Amino acid sequence: MIRRLAVVGLGFLGGSVAKAVRAKGLAQEIVAVGHRPESLTPALAEGVVDRVTTDLNEGLNGADFVLLATPVATMERLLPEVWRAADTQAVVTDVGSAKGRLVRSALALSRSKRVAFVGSHPMAGSERSGYPAARADLFESATVIVTPAPETPEWVSKRVTEFWEAQGARVATMSPDLHDRLVAAVSHLPHLVAYALVDAVAGRVEEEAFGYATGGFKDTTRIAASDARIWREIFLSNREALRETLGDFRSALERLERLLEPEAGEELEHELERIRRVRERLR
Amino acid sequence: MIRRLAVVGLGFLGGSVAKAVRAKGLAQEIVAVGHRPESLTPALAEGVVDRVTTDLNEGLNGADFVLLATPVATMERLLPEVWRAADTQAVVTDVGSAKGRLVRSALALSRSKRVAFVGSHPMAGSERSGYPAARADLFESATVIVTPAPETPEWVSKRVTEFWEAQGARVATMSPDLHDRLVAAVSHLPHLVAYALVDAVAGRVEEEAFGYATGGFKDTTRIAASDARIWREIFLSNREALRETLGDFRSALERLERLLEPEAGEELEHELERIRRVRERLR
Repeated sequence: MIRRLAVVGLGFLGGSVAKAVRAKGLAQEIVAVGHRPESLTPALAEGVVDRVTTDLNEGLNGADFVLLATPVATMERLLPEVWRAADTQAVVTDVGSAKGRLVRSALALSRSKRVAFVGSHPMAGSERSGYPAARADLFESATVIVTPAPETPEWVSKRVTEFWEAQGARVATMSPDLHDRLVAAVSHLPHLVAYALVDAVAGRVEEEAFGYATGGFKDTTRIAASDARIWREIFLSNREALRETLGDFRSALERLERLLEPEAGEELEHELERIRRVRERLR
Repeated sequence: MIRRLAVVGLGFLGGSVAKAVRAKGLAQEIVAVGHRPESLTPALAEGVVDRVTTDLNEGLNGADFVLLATPVATMERLLPEVWRAADTQAVVTDVGSAKGRLVRSALALSRSKRVAFVGSHPMAGSERSGYPAARADLFESATVIVTPAPETPEWVSKRVTEFWEAQGARVATMSPDLHDRLVAAVSHLPHLVAYALVDAVAGRVEEEAFGYATGGFKDTTRIAASDARIWREIFLSNREALRETLGDFRSALERLERLLEPEAGEELEHELERIRRVRERLR
């Protein structure tokens, strides 16, 4: 049970956590911190949060659980201030889609002031944005990855794991770096590729093509309709791992392109079949 | 009304046409031509076709409508034989997913013997294979592209258009080359990219990653589970247009990759937003 939960950034994810925590009665009090007062009032009016403030110090004062739910770049910028404002008894986590850099900053800050921190990444609805889209049931059956560093005390990971599980999530635990490589591969790379696909098709055959875009194209590029501001943040926050996996992708594509010759037909089919079998495991 | 329809290649598409034509009573007689007798017997037993033969000459003899529905490479190889066997009264079309090369061969053959030919590409279910998957309602509301050359008499396009419309399809007409560029962009490129994505992810984070593959990855790579033999044929049949659109894709991806720097954040967001708006039109 949380006495006072502070949610910093009341957008889609922060708002969904506030709604879930309220609906399930997981905290006695919920305080929302944001930089624009008008974006906080709906949650206050709905009774989803008890108090709102634009002052980080005021918001974190007396909170025993702090959720950072701003865009990742803002989080990285706010982190020293969070460290100054946070109660030494508080447990702090976040919802960012990249973990390596943030966790390293947290570890560095912890050398001067010990704050119980572990990173989280709820894998849910990253294409949505804003409090109006927030849902109390967002984390039901969602996966949340919790990313302790070797230095993270086990009780901190346990507390944060329980926080997400109480909202209905399935929690997986792994290192921040493995997390970043993994989401770069299964999420950030496909998004970047989908944007490039739409751009390439729009550039070449323009309007004409879109009338004939079948299910395959629509599925493959659906995520290119994601919010640009959010994805700018995500791509930049995980750019090292993303570049690495982009290199893998480029090599894989070049391998296939070299086989686009009638004489290489057998080998092309063999490769496609090998990849098809890998993909089949995902059904 | 067709007196005798000859379907050469009784797989998923050929079988679906035979079933649709039978169900709607569009032909008095249906003859299936295939190279393996055992693959033809189920359709005969079901009464979907009236006669089967492995002999192209026998199959085309007396047919006033001929549908070529083998893999594209086989079609290209069979074309001279089709020209020899076809009745001069017959209208010939096909279901191939690339048109430029086939139409050029047909035009060349027509210089010595006039056969009424126009290419067709039913955009339906290219990921399926085999007669057992064939469906009488496959073309209901599907799009079929008919690709007359400047030399194609209008009555031939009209006859073939009516053939597809009678099966419930919506027909679009365009040049063979525009068709090839268009399907390279909206279908063949996304397939190749999906295969490369799966391969890149499988190579880097292997099994681990697949447990965390969310909707985005699954949607983007669904088509990488397509039949390898069919896609080998499709990729090779349209390789010139595919290479061209692959070049566009590579450029688009490189443009985005260059923007994966914090200083380029504004421009990255601007580009993502521009592409998002293009993709929105597809919803």
